[in-house]
Amino acid sequence: MKKFEHLFEPRAIAVVGVSDDGARPGTQALRALAKNGFQGRLFPVNPKYETFDELPCFASVDAIPEAVDLVVIGVPASGVLAVLESCARKRVGYAVILSGGFRESGPEGIERERRLLEIARAAGIRLLGPNCLGFANIHTGLYAAFGSITRPPKLQRGSVSLVTQSGGFGYSIALACAEAGIGFRHVIATGNETDIDTIQLIDALLDDDETRSIIVYIEGTSDGRALLDVGRRALAAGKPVLLWKGGVTEQGAKAAESHTASMTGTYDFYRALFRQTGIVEIQELHEAVDYLLAFEGRRYPAGNGVAVMGVSGGSAIVFADAGERRGLHLCELSAQTQQALAGVVPNIGAVHNPIDLTAGYFSAANQVKLEAAVRATLADPGVHALCVNLATTGQAGSLAAAQVLVRVAQESAKPIVVFSSTPVSENAAALAEFAKGAVPVLRSPSRAARAVATLADYRRVRERLLGAPTAADAGMADSATSVQAGRTLSEAESKAVLAAAGIPVSRDLMVPGPGKLAIEGLRLPLVVKVVSPDIAHKTDVGGVRLGIDSQAALDEAIAEVLANARRHVPQARIEGALVSEMVRGGFELIAGVVNDEVFGPVVVVGSGGIYAEVLKDTAARIAPFDEATALDMLGELRCRPILDGVRGAPACDVGAIASALAALSRFAWAHRDQVREVDINPLFALPDGVVAADALVVPL
Amino acid sequence: MKKFEHLFEPRAIAVVGVSDDGARPGTQALRALAKNGFQGRLFPVNPKYETFDELPCFASVDAIPEAVDLVVIGVPASGVLAVLESCARKRVGYAVILSGGFRESGPEGIERERRLLEIARAAGIRLLGPNCLGFANIHTGLYAAFGSITRPPKLQRGSVSLVTQSGGFGYSIALACAEAGIGFRHVIATGNETDIDTIQLIDALLDDDETRSIIVYIEGTSDGRALLDVGRRALAAGKPVLLWKGGVTEQGAKAAESHTASMTGTYDFYRALFRQTGIVEIQELHEAVDYLLAFEGRRYPAGNGVAVMGVSGGSAIVFADAGERRGLHLCELSAQTQQALAGVVPNIGAVHNPIDLTAGYFSAANQVKLEAAVRATLADPGVHALCVNLATTGQAGSLAAAQVLVRVAQESAKPIVVFSSTPVSENAAALAEFAKGAVPVLRSPSRAARAVATLADYRRVRERLLGAPTAADAGMADSATSVQAGRTLSEAESKAVLAAAGIPVSRDLMVPGPGKLAIEGLRLPLVVKVVSPDIAHKTDVGGVRLGIDSQAALDEAIAEVLANARRHVPQARIEGALVSEMVRGGFELIAGVVNDEVFGPVVVVGSGGIYAEVLKDTAARIAPFDEATALDMLGELRCRPILDGVRGAPACDVGAIASALAALSRFAWAHRDQVREVDINPLFALPDGVVAADALVVPL
Repeated sequence: MKKFEHLFEPRAIAVVGVSDDGARPGTQALRALAKNGFQGRLFPVNPKYETFDELPCFASVDAIPEAVDLVVIGVPASGVLAVLESCARKRVGYAVILSGGFRESGPEGIERERRLLEIARAAGIRLLGPNCLGFANIHTGLYAAFGSITRPPKLQRGSVSLVTQSGGFGYSIALACAEAGIGFRHVIATGNETDIDTIQLIDALLDDDETRSIIVYIEGTSDGRALLDVGRRALAAGKPVLLWKGGVTEQGAKAAESHTASMTGTYDFYRALFRQTGIVEIQELHEAVDYLLAFEGRRYPAGNGVAVMGVSGGSAIVFADAGERRGLHLCELSAQTQQALAGVVPNIGAVHNPIDLTAGYFSAANQVKLEAAVRATLADPGVHALCVNLATTGQAGSLAAAQVLVRVAQESAKPIVVFSSTPVSENAAALAEFAKGAVPVLRSPSRAARAVATLADYRRVRERLLGAPTAADAGMADSATSVQAGRTLSEAESKAVLAAAGIPVSRDLMVPGPGKLAIEGLRLPLVVKVVSPDIAHKTDVGGVRLGIDSQAALDEAIAEVLANARRHVPQARIEGALVSEMVRGGFELIAGVVNDEVFGPVVVVGSGGIYAEVLKDTAARIAPFDEATALDMLGELRCRPILDGVRGAPACDVGAIASALAALSRFAWAHRDQVREVDINPLFALPDGVVAADALVVPL
Repeated sequence: MKKFEHLFEPRAIAVVGVSDDGARPGTQALRALAKNGFQGRLFPVNPKYETFDELPCFASVDAIPEAVDLVVIGVPASGVLAVLESCARKRVGYAVILSGGFRESGPEGIERERRLLEIARAAGIRLLGPNCLGFANIHTGLYAAFGSITRPPKLQRGSVSLVTQSGGFGYSIALACAEAGIGFRHVIATGNETDIDTIQLIDALLDDDETRSIIVYIEGTSDGRALLDVGRRALAAGKPVLLWKGGVTEQGAKAAESHTASMTGTYDFYRALFRQTGIVEIQELHEAVDYLLAFEGRRYPAGNGVAVMGVSGGSAIVFADAGERRGLHLCELSAQTQQALAGVVPNIGAVHNPIDLTAGYFSAANQVKLEAAVRATLADPGVHALCVNLATTGQAGSLAAAQVLVRVAQESAKPIVVFSSTPVSENAAALAEFAKGAVPVLRSPSRAARAVATLADYRRVRERLLGAPTAADAGMADSATSVQAGRTLSEAESKAVLAAAGIPVSRDLMVPGPGKLAIEGLRLPLVVKVVSPDIAHKTDVGGVRLGIDSQAALDEAIAEVLANARRHVPQARIEGALVSEMVRGGFELIAGVVNDEVFGPVVVVGSGGIYAEVLKDTAARIAPFDEATALDMLGELRCRPILDGVRGAPACDVGAIASALAALSRFAWAHRDQVREVDINPLFALPDGVVAADALVVPL
């Protein structure tokens, strides 16, 4: 590990807070370090003892006569600052603070945590914690930790690293994975993340050759952009990141407040981030297991076509059901494939997809036939992945299948997954064989389908996103912009600003007072709205008139909206009336920008009209992004099929919508220091373009 | 078991198809019967042998000199009919046909299966199978089965019975449950269900005192009404039925076609059935495990209020997230509860919900405190269920907690569930203690939340449905009805029929020809539609004119729709024009009846307008049903909030919609032999009622 080298590979460690009480975090950590084979120097610290567990014990960190890379602090919160000061004097590089009693515990703790960081920054000490279980480097047997991390069963060495804000729950993820045979590299509980945070650790693990996959539990981050960046770097590096976000619902977020006191952030924006980085969201323990196993093979389906073969018709059906829900398609097999299969599948079986090999097919006697069947299926151009259902096949048959599948898998670019429900206790030899060849064995056909779909999604996102623009490419703000922080924009100014940014807006004419506009040359009907920087909700004050189709009606409408506005909001600065061509036909969308505290500018698009608030049919992406990303985003909307034309309506110009959203995202990014919010409502999707009929740009 | 007594408890069994090949189904079945302790007489049948496995072997079933209750047939398909004929001569009561090669294998097999049933019916033999793995009575050690059912691990005795159409996949469910410590009563694979089917078996298991829960895998049934009835009887009996429906997607159903050749049926109607019976749908193996464990306690939350306590903040957050998605509410604890908790929870913990007991709380030393905390929480009137998060707590702490929780659970009417991620191998004593008290231990906090929600849903459905009307209560068809099978109804007749059934319709006046109607007395605007039994899609032929607001326009519209219809469909019988008051305002729904082949009449309601087909926002219930069920059904619609009034619109009369839907369901049931389909489009939901503005009743 190149970053945080002497945290994860320290040459000497001091543990402060050892005591006769074996339950104390410090004592637990010292004993975990001693018994798991840490190879460096180990110094217990407690002024009360000369020796502790037969090691020389020191009165304080700065009393240790040798260099110390890492100090593990397990004293009560009230003593932590003094210990850290002694670390500063000793010029220690890293401290892991197991103790709770900081930000999560009220005003006194907040102040204590502030001081903690102050001391660490001044002395150049990097901190893990406080309020954490510590970490373990499984490869070197370094357990700078207490609690469940140090209890049996001991994790096996492997290539997965875990970073978790919650020690208790995060370690549950590790245990579930361990039970399924997954091995680990680093297990790191970050607690309050006063200094070193999840994102920095992911970044460091990308540089760690021994980490191939990363699994994360977080409740929140204060820097969504940093998570976006590290997620994209992980994608580029081909190291899958699986992430469980806690606190995604209202009551979950409320519960998180009193836990690590993390900012939970808007879940919709996290989901946007997952789509823009290929980070795999998990929401159940077995998903962690399944996807880690599936990624282990490092083979990704080039499309959504899957073939299923096996001895259980029910399993194939369940696979097909779960696959359809995740976009997998049981493809038609070519005549050539079916012909090849017919040579090696019994007559009473089936050579179409799903392929029925017939009961008892998996056996040592059938290995040559099975290999031919698997190779023929994988050779079919429509097949991008293969699921083999062993179902309840016993050990001998499973082992025979494993030998064949591992051999074929190693020569194939297409992934093979296996469903077996044979109890692990009855199937050790077969499972070991599968593990040797990194052929994932899933515990249900539906889980197998979701694992394949996750691999396919990952590949698709990777291909898409490695070519997508990043914030660094998007260029800076247009210096001629009229958006200035603190200065409110009228609707007319807002539309002008957006038009300049490349977003089509409806034609508007500003009139300063009553009766000044000739109707000739305008496309009827018109809408008349009052223009005032002090009136946000124009309809509420009678400031809008629709359907104007004559000069007389226009004159009257202009006079009326101005009068209404003056009557309702006497103190408003009224700049005049805006006369706009009403947009007709097409489909009403809403679009906007939220300049989020955590994620910066995020573009949101959704169904407009009455369904907007009821259906909450919206999609989000972190700005800036390209048109392909905008198309993806539109694809998430439930109203998406309407844009292609339903019930005889013409199709809308989806490319123009995507182009407008991408332009909006560039505008939002370029003006991230000036713009708080943009609301375009409605954004009309038309057969030949897109038009923002009303808009408001709200400056910071 | 009272029904099928000598199938499941036979006194003597013959096994036909034993051979030297140990892999043959007959041989496997005989050996499974012999080795698992079947206590009755056992007769191998094969003319080639004098003895088989040291038992006297007979040339045919009718050569056996003693009475035989059950014959297990494992010969190839071509020999099955002859064996069944010998069973008929022997007057055998039951046959289990393991052999495949029937309906699932093409025309010859279809004919063979037809003959099979014919012979069985004539002789009074009841059949299980063909094309099945057989069954096992786990309590008596009776294994009339082959394949995975007979292989290790042996299932433990327990109170769950499994009925599955797919042997291979269904037994995967049993294995997953067994691995979690769940014991079984009967395991029955039904295969092609030529005679005895899943529904009859569920019915029989309701009468089996040793079965407390039933788990089912089906691909389809041809009699949805029978499933509805047996589901309701199970609900009344308090025996939960968990059901996995295979083939719920398009490609899943396609895959099912070639499996057991079952009719998969419309998944939406199955889901309606689940809601109307309390049948718990499962879609993953761990759901079977979790819900069976949770039901074992037979305690159901009286509402959605839950409390969470434990040592892992992250686990509480994950529970809160998953709970919110299933309607659970982390309730506020009363001041009294919080005060009681404050006495037994450390200061650095939290006495609000989620309750933070602080790390290391679960211990023998803390048992008295824990008991007080649990009792105080359960005593809170807002708490309907409690989740205790042990998370990674070790064995000693888990055992201490188990002793307390089991004691309290036995005295409490409110369910307690536990989350523990401690590996089973490290936690046997605690898990045994929990199992003793039927306190379910779930493997993730999210699974714990869904288990609690499932219990709460079950109670709610049970309370609701035990009072709901059944088909038997709904009365018969009105003899004065004008609906006759085979005679098509016009829109006007359709509306008249529905109006008579209690469904409000808009005011219509029929005019036989041009210019016959004075506009006085009608509420404008009007709509004019051509009336013809031969024109279903009136808009397509210019047969509809909207927005008529004057006598002249009315005269012209009547003439025009008649002329258009004559021009476009010259052969149509044109009965005249229908002049209707246009319904304005309100919200457009669609409603209808499908008289389904599997389920009989089903009522469907959905969002109307452009969103109808795009959102597929519909809900269904099997007719007949009451208004409470109709309200439930409306509650499933995504558009439901619109009915309460959004963006300043007045609320719609939801009671009137429910009343109309219930009336429609009674009409549909009463006319199930006359009506194929009813389409009401639109059904206007208004502030003061509901109006069917257009309707078509399609006779059978």
